[in-house]
Amino acid sequence: MPKNKQILLASRPTGQVTQENFRLAETDLVPLAEGELRVRNHYLSLDPYMRGRMNDSKSYAAPQPLNEVMIGGTVGEVTDSRNENFKPGDHVAGFFGWQEYGTSTGAGLQKIDCTHIPISAYLGAVGMPGVTAWYGLNKIIAPKPGETVVVSAASGAVGSAVGQLAKQKGCHVIGIAGGPEKCSYVQHDLGFDACIDYKSTDLTTALKDAAPKGIDGYFDNVGGPTLDAVMLRANPFARFAICGAISGYDGEPLVMKYPTLILISRLKIEGFIVSEHPEIWPEALKELGTLVATGKLKYRESIAQGLASAPEAFIGLLKGRNFGKQLVKLT
Amino acid sequence: MPKNKQILLASRPTGQVTQENFRLAETDLVPLAEGELRVRNHYLSLDPYMRGRMNDSKSYAAPQPLNEVMIGGTVGEVTDSRNENFKPGDHVAGFFGWQEYGTSTGAGLQKIDCTHIPISAYLGAVGMPGVTAWYGLNKIIAPKPGETVVVSAASGAVGSAVGQLAKQKGCHVIGIAGGPEKCSYVQHDLGFDACIDYKSTDLTTALKDAAPKGIDGYFDNVGGPTLDAVMLRANPFARFAICGAISGYDGEPLVMKYPTLILISRLKIEGFIVSEHPEIWPEALKELGTLVATGKLKYRESIAQGLASAPEAFIGLLKGRNFGKQLVKLT
Repeated sequence: MPKNKQILLASRPTGQVTQENFRLAETDLVPLAEGELRVRNHYLSLDPYMRGRMNDSKSYAAPQPLNEVMIGGTVGEVTDSRNENFKPGDHVAGFFGWQEYGTSTGAGLQKIDCTHIPISAYLGAVGMPGVTAWYGLNKIIAPKPGETVVVSAASGAVGSAVGQLAKQKGCHVIGIAGGPEKCSYVQHDLGFDACIDYKSTDLTTALKDAAPKGIDGYFDNVGGPTLDAVMLRANPFARFAICGAISGYDGEPLVMKYPTLILISRLKIEGFIVSEHPEIWPEALKELGTLVATGKLKYRESIAQGLASAPEAFIGLLKGRNFGKQLVKLT
Repeated sequence: MPKNKQILLASRPTGQVTQENFRLAETDLVPLAEGELRVRNHYLSLDPYMRGRMNDSKSYAAPQPLNEVMIGGTVGEVTDSRNENFKPGDHVAGFFGWQEYGTSTGAGLQKIDCTHIPISAYLGAVGMPGVTAWYGLNKIIAPKPGETVVVSAASGAVGSAVGQLAKQKGCHVIGIAGGPEKCSYVQHDLGFDACIDYKSTDLTTALKDAAPKGIDGYFDNVGGPTLDAVMLRANPFARFAICGAISGYDGEPLVMKYPTLILISRLKIEGFIVSEHPEIWPEALKELGTLVATGKLKYRESIAQGLASAPEAFIGLLKGRNFGKQLVKLT
């Protein structure tokens, strides 16, 4: 019977995450009990929310326990089953975390169809990031054709979907991303109307140029000074979907500089966690799956090879080094 | 023909408002043209939003022009009319500003019934402040019975209505006000469950004690550190109606200290201006009028005597010296 490799949380970061916060462990796989099945994970998803879970502080979810397998979404193939609902060869999406094999009673596992959609897409455009984009855009921003929508981390898994979905609704769409390569991809490959490189431009000025009619909707993946700059250009009654605060995860305290604009511009600012809205997943996944299968929703992946590369890939993700959805290929 | 006394905006404040920002002027009343009517204003309403209009900066409304009559809501009695819809003796609510007489074609004037409701209440509980409370509570916070609702500036025209309306919905209601006298009024006369004196208590600790189950709705009349303290105690999915930022009006820049709580606690924070929602006014005024006429909605007024006292009363309002709705009696 093969061994299972896992990455555990060894210590909580003080400030920036380092390799030392993680530990590789090897365990024996044990025979399945009646009703269980085993999955060989093909891909592990790395996502910014994991940084929050590494802290021991109040969050919307319980902290990741020390010395346990790091949490995370996975896709893979059933290798062995004593569960009548799953058979070897079935593809499944689950939440097995940073390990090569997962053992489950089937609860929380979704069978996925990889005929027209690559398996890794179920961790991205047709998975949690895609549904996140769909929810924030449709349920919070709810843009009308002709309105201007801005999204930060625009080349990422969530941001790239937000912008493409907004373009399909007839919006004027502006991305914010770091570096000329990402911005070129967002504008020319994904078809956004503009993309601002926050590393080389004054964001406030650039937003004024790119959004001459002001901003009606903002999908916020980063918080901090980017949020401040967008608020300064927001039109009356603009809607802000707050999805991430990547620049604040490293313990740096970030303030909102102009909260009185909430009143002055009558903004609606709403934070959300997509897993708390299960009622919209079927509709969202159906739409996203159709768009991906027909080539109308593009995405890009950064793939690290092998479980041992996960900590470094995750640290890179927090620094914006990834380009598109960050995955770890485990097979 | 009597003279009309007016108060004009003489200069824009740099920092705190002073008497020198205003100038008293006297003008001749001219005979009415066909279709016009004249109103002797009985009460002038002083409201925090006027501070924002005194600046020349971007706001939700055009700035108050220099050397023109200060804007403001008024109630009074028609003294003379060449308009078939109004006759001498009619009571009206209007927007004549800081002056003794108003002349109008009738546009924007509302006839009011003073049989069961005192005329001054149409500037408070049955006027803009009351409708403001009604909108923020019902349309943004939308509390369920048993939820905890907090309101700042709780002894004021808006805050006192918010809390009483929330109590009638079966909520646990906590006021925040300045000083023991205001707090006693809020708790014992208005029937809030608790009132925190922000001048003598650590707000964060006091909120923890007063809201042991956390905060589900916050009606914000002040912004600044009070908003920060409430955010720290907000439950998941709490709703914040942002109605005022009195502590920021004097030019002092106020930040929001913990914006990542918007995501962590999935808050919905929405700024609003009640005049932009005319569709709800009839329903709100009907409910508020019934509650006032039947003694179920209490209010308190601070009345300054005579037009010349308006600047000082307004400066006092900005410093929280008023106790209840601030009015100027003009007759």
